[in-house]
Amino acid sequence: MNMTTMRSDESSAACAAPEPEPVAIICGGGSFPGAVADAVARRGRRPVMLAIKGWADPQVVERYTHHWIALGQAGRLIRLANAEHCREAVFIGTVLRPPLAKIRLDWRTLRALPRIARFFSGGDDRLLSRVANLFEEGGLRIIGLHEVAPEIFVPAGVLGGYRPSLRDNSDIARALEVIAALGPLDVGQAAVVADNHVLAVEAAEGTDNMLARVAELRRQRRVTTPLGVGVLVKAPKPGQDRRFDLPAIGLRTVENVAHAGLAGLAVTAGSTIIAEASAVVAAADRAKIFLAGVREEAAR
Amino acid sequence: MNMTTMRSDESSAACAAPEPEPVAIICGGGSFPGAVADAVARRGRRPVMLAIKGWADPQVVERYTHHWIALGQAGRLIRLANAEHCREAVFIGTVLRPPLAKIRLDWRTLRALPRIARFFSGGDDRLLSRVANLFEEGGLRIIGLHEVAPEIFVPAGVLGGYRPSLRDNSDIARALEVIAALGPLDVGQAAVVADNHVLAVEAAEGTDNMLARVAELRRQRRVTTPLGVGVLVKAPKPGQDRRFDLPAIGLRTVENVAHAGLAGLAVTAGSTIIAEASAVVAAADRAKIFLAGVREEAAR
Repeated sequence: MNMTTMRSDESSAACAAPEPEPVAIICGGGSFPGAVADAVARRGRRPVMLAIKGWADPQVVERYTHHWIALGQAGRLIRLANAEHCREAVFIGTVLRPPLAKIRLDWRTLRALPRIARFFSGGDDRLLSRVANLFEEGGLRIIGLHEVAPEIFVPAGVLGGYRPSLRDNSDIARALEVIAALGPLDVGQAAVVADNHVLAVEAAEGTDNMLARVAELRRQRRVTTPLGVGVLVKAPKPGQDRRFDLPAIGLRTVENVAHAGLAGLAVTAGSTIIAEASAVVAAADRAKIFLAGVREEAAR
Repeated sequence: MNMTTMRSDESSAACAAPEPEPVAIICGGGSFPGAVADAVARRGRRPVMLAIKGWADPQVVERYTHHWIALGQAGRLIRLANAEHCREAVFIGTVLRPPLAKIRLDWRTLRALPRIARFFSGGDDRLLSRVANLFEEGGLRIIGLHEVAPEIFVPAGVLGGYRPSLRDNSDIARALEVIAALGPLDVGQAAVVADNHVLAVEAAEGTDNMLARVAELRRQRRVTTPLGVGVLVKAPKPGQDRRFDLPAIGLRTVENVAHAGLAGLAVTAGSTIIAEASAVVAAADRAKIFLAGVREEAAR
């Protein structure tokens, strides 16, 4: 089983795990898989990139040991993870609900399909939880990102040089209410509220599209709240399986919030992923918008 | 007071009102004010168009007695209604939340402003209810459209030649749940659900924009449910003051539903306005999509 003998040198002080096993990183699209792999490596564990064809970015995954897998190849994924001595895996990156024709089923997945199919209709959340169970039956435990890379989450508090106003805080609370109300229907990780008025609710379009819409509604004068009023809020759906599809922000989010004429963005602390945090905070400061990590309890 | 003496000839049989008083129609944008005026006239009452400058369409309102008023002129509106012997008024047509600079306050409105202002922050619903109270203090009762023009509402049942499938009915139920969940937050009169997956939720952008978004997400392959799967559902917000801002559909709605590749549209019977119903039903048949009036209880 290739168990590494525990060593007690200085470098292990920063690494709490007594036995640093490799971690399989199941990689969807975007740059986050790279950030997670870097965090895993900094903590002394070896990242093994299991890159989903058609989604993962070769430049991101090729910096570490990697294997390409097609969607639907759960059996192959488990075999690769076993061969690399990984017993734990995380999911990270974008994988939109694929067209059925794009899915390449292998034998293990095919056998499990009747069970999966029951969950395929409905929210992505339940589908992914079901897929995770399938992996666990093959000896690969799907763990949360906070267990291997807690530093990729937004911390609580105000991150940059600008703070939310009282009105912004009230708008944040209302947006959290919107997200909480939609959670049971497996929709909505983000909303835009300006002066207590809900301008946009995110569903399948994604946050960048939603912010572009707010900018466009302003341009058309269909939204007339003054520039600099309004907030973007992102939060996981209540009850969401935290191993999948967590909200994420990056440079583009900050640019789009500024372009939509909002005061800033608030995201749930400890459950929203941020890539290149220092660059994102610097961009928020340049755009004169606030960036805050809020406690989820604020929504309840 | 210009009370018309009751007459008992044949034509009055179709007109239940014992004393046909004129009805003030406060007209926003679009063609619906004309349809309401026609329905009012058919029932033997005289429509008086109080047309909101910048919103009402001159060609629509000029077919009947009409006066132009600016937003914010509640005093002038009440004086005009009194002069025309109207004691009842209905609101109809689009008036988006206006920029403050566009509002021309008259004295009565100005005096009421501190009371109105408390309601201006927040949903349009409460704002409009507050404005209605102001009118009622001036002797002008704001009534529901169903009291003067019930035929402008979508009836219950399947309207055209296509029927919703079992899957469509399940999608309709889920969309009604989304609308019901958001009601307390004064947002969302419409949603698109395909195969139990919530694709879009309407906030400030309006139904046509939301449907264009679904069509675009399909084009970009971000939505991969097959063509002909998915429904648009429109319903009033639960608890909404039914005198204002009811959901409405028309030819453009049907065209956009077809363009978004959906199976059809379902709207709440008795509370969704339809203009040119026969033309809309014919368009739905040509586009091979269903058009159904559903009972609101289906959402609860």
